[in-house]
Amino acid sequence: MRNILIIGAGRSSSSLIKYLLDKSSSEKIHITVGDLSIENAQHKINNHPNASAIKLDIFNRKNRTEAIEKTDIVISMLPAHLHIEVAKDCLTYGKHMVTASYVSKEMKSLHNQVVKKGLVFMNEIGLDPGIDHMSAMQIIDRIHENNGKMLLFESFCGGLVAPESDTNLWNYKFTWNPRNVVLAGQGGASMFIQEGTYKYIPYHKLFRRTEFLSINENEKFEAYANRDSLKYRSIYGLDTIPTMYRGTIRKVGFSRAWNVFVQLGMTDDTYTIENSEQLSYRDFTNLFLAYSPTDSVELKFRLYLKIDQDDIMWEKFLELDIFNPTKKVLLKDATPAQILQKILMDSWTLQPNDKDMIVMHHILGYENETGKHQIESSMLIKGDDQTYTAMSKTVGLPVAMATLRILNKEITTPGVQLPIKKEVYEPILKELQNYGINFTEKEVPFLGYNPNSVKG
Amino acid sequence: MRNILIIGAGRSSSSLIKYLLDKSSSEKIHITVGDLSIENAQHKINNHPNASAIKLDIFNRKNRTEAIEKTDIVISMLPAHLHIEVAKDCLTYGKHMVTASYVSKEMKSLHNQVVKKGLVFMNEIGLDPGIDHMSAMQIIDRIHENNGKMLLFESFCGGLVAPESDTNLWNYKFTWNPRNVVLAGQGGASMFIQEGTYKYIPYHKLFRRTEFLSINENEKFEAYANRDSLKYRSIYGLDTIPTMYRGTIRKVGFSRAWNVFVQLGMTDDTYTIENSEQLSYRDFTNLFLAYSPTDSVELKFRLYLKIDQDDIMWEKFLELDIFNPTKKVLLKDATPAQILQKILMDSWTLQPNDKDMIVMHHILGYENETGKHQIESSMLIKGDDQTYTAMSKTVGLPVAMATLRILNKEITTPGVQLPIKKEVYEPILKELQNYGINFTEKEVPFLGYNPNSVKG
Repeated sequence: MRNILIIGAGRSSSSLIKYLLDKSSSEKIHITVGDLSIENAQHKINNHPNASAIKLDIFNRKNRTEAIEKTDIVISMLPAHLHIEVAKDCLTYGKHMVTASYVSKEMKSLHNQVVKKGLVFMNEIGLDPGIDHMSAMQIIDRIHENNGKMLLFESFCGGLVAPESDTNLWNYKFTWNPRNVVLAGQGGASMFIQEGTYKYIPYHKLFRRTEFLSINENEKFEAYANRDSLKYRSIYGLDTIPTMYRGTIRKVGFSRAWNVFVQLGMTDDTYTIENSEQLSYRDFTNLFLAYSPTDSVELKFRLYLKIDQDDIMWEKFLELDIFNPTKKVLLKDATPAQILQKILMDSWTLQPNDKDMIVMHHILGYENETGKHQIESSMLIKGDDQTYTAMSKTVGLPVAMATLRILNKEITTPGVQLPIKKEVYEPILKELQNYGINFTEKEVPFLGYNPNSVKG
Repeated sequence: MRNILIIGAGRSSSSLIKYLLDKSSSEKIHITVGDLSIENAQHKINNHPNASAIKLDIFNRKNRTEAIEKTDIVISMLPAHLHIEVAKDCLTYGKHMVTASYVSKEMKSLHNQVVKKGLVFMNEIGLDPGIDHMSAMQIIDRIHENNGKMLLFESFCGGLVAPESDTNLWNYKFTWNPRNVVLAGQGGASMFIQEGTYKYIPYHKLFRRTEFLSINENEKFEAYANRDSLKYRSIYGLDTIPTMYRGTIRKVGFSRAWNVFVQLGMTDDTYTIENSEQLSYRDFTNLFLAYSPTDSVELKFRLYLKIDQDDIMWEKFLELDIFNPTKKVLLKDATPAQILQKILMDSWTLQPNDKDMIVMHHILGYENETGKHQIESSMLIKGDDQTYTAMSKTVGLPVAMATLRILNKEITTPGVQLPIKKEVYEPILKELQNYGINFTEKEVPFLGYNPNSVKG
């Protein structure tokens, strides 16, 4: 029996835990699920004979090290900033580790020690980051193997609501941490490069600088730029590529309306509002509009944001009830972002039968002896229900698959790793297909930003 | 002989040092000017018999404490974040201290110790903060003494170029630290209250939410809101006042054009630009515009910012030469804000014969047994030349006057202080009049935001 410790039994752990439980007898593994709430952990393992649930308080050193000492590998599904404590213990006790989060500076600094102990700390092996790395590197490596030269890399990903559950004017529901959605794009300018020209977009323009995406002909989406696309040049071994852009996918029209919240200042999380508890939704909206003893909040809102009366965007705000004078905020010392999140959760929370959907889309341009070419590769997956969501599957399954392969010594390169090596991505992308996570690839004419392809 | 140590012989110390030198014989004082550059210090004292210049490195503990130990009072004209080291030494050696900067948390925390030692640490006694506090509190105290109830307090201040030196389309030149001008308004939302309604303006809307000001009938200005007007309610003893607004004055049209830099993201100081050194001004501008292999930077700029061809604003950007393809940035690893500052300094640097100008304007509304009233009080002063600028006079003279009065035991309330007590503001405002710094006060009908006063 080998032991796997999973820390964190939240929503995104469902598919991960199910996968490992299903394999537990054939792979001879015992799974321990640790969570601050033992009920959560128990619920997830559902009396499976090869699993046990424990109460695990990550801030309790004794509690944490005892659990880590007993296992062979640790999967940390904690919030990203908490991985480091687990990682240090894994190093101390000589345990492998897997996370779905971005490698932090602290995590990176452990690399030499991890190598010295012959351990694998695999990170960024969820959805985004994770499946995006693997599916992109698979194509990039193939292009390079065939003596192609990469000209363009664009990659897009979005967590959306499935069309059958898409019941509001925003074509959006919270399928993931709502707070992250409200704060998306903050913390600095977005940066990328197009045909050798650097581009920087400040947060307050981000949602007006979207690109349209056509996936499978009839499905139209839009995307706004992620924070730092530039750093992916070195990660993907494309240091001199002239075009590198990564973006977040939304349904068409979302960003233009979301921009209104950004313009108003409602997504600000850096200060608290006086007397926030007693404000109505209408009062909250009015905080960001010029004072007038006579004009209505609606009129001021429309004038300030230049929203015509027959603009569909206007209906989106009415739908959210942000002009309601009786609904109260009821949050004490809240930031604008916290209040906005509450207002949105009234309308955008998934209902019991709602399904989520993940869309990923890569565009790769390259040149070889036969000329310039372009590959488009897309993946679209829907959730089964509210437990086995598309998010839970795409985040959890690659984590689980990597974990088993590390245990089975199929993934062996030691150190703080990303899934960008063939050893990792080939078998995992292949196995993911069995779970409905597969990419459709097509060759299209190279477009780039060639003026000759611009009509009229 | 009493000893005064002045730390920092920069531009803003000129009037301060001149005032004290002029009084040195009658007041029996010796002035020591310490600066990192002894030449600067020597230049400022100009061989005056009652003064000496020393090289003073504030980061050299021995150097610093030796100078402080020998004096009776210290004037710190250092950048605001450096006062605290001086303040701790003043506490150790039992010396009074005067600064023109906002009281920091660290400075505030010394209050009890300063009181215990019977010392006066007078802060915020320059222009803004300083003359604004004093001139406002003089009127507020008078209104309260006459049983008036404060309804409205609005206060505006700006450092501008004098009309006779106003030679560019922006009607602006750098009369103070250019970096502070580029970064003005950043670091959080601006907050104030109008007739009991809180208002919050995010940075990216700040320069589009200006107010017009009419000072002395024919002089029109505009103002944008300062960061935190709310905190002045408690500082001025106006905790329940329904309207409290503080703003920065510019000539009409400045803010609308400045907003273009904000919208583009050119004022961002949080990241550095790759290869910034080699960029032309045109390249720099293009960093913030969408990529196009064909459209001109000018066209993209105008479309993005919605600037019509006959808009006067357009000429303002041409004047700054931001579309020049040959002028180089020549700054390595520079932030957008640093590059913008350089571009602006090409055009906005004061010429040898240019004069600056300070404008301050208070609007105070109150109610008493005879009804509602409004007082407007304004101050306008021009610099004599590039040494005795309006900024140097308005910052340095109140500092100097307070210093002498502390030495002469006319200002005695111990502790970390602001100039909001009559003991301080009455004599200093009176003396400032001898130097051309005086307020013109007039009674006007109470306007407030009364809808009855809105015509048509």
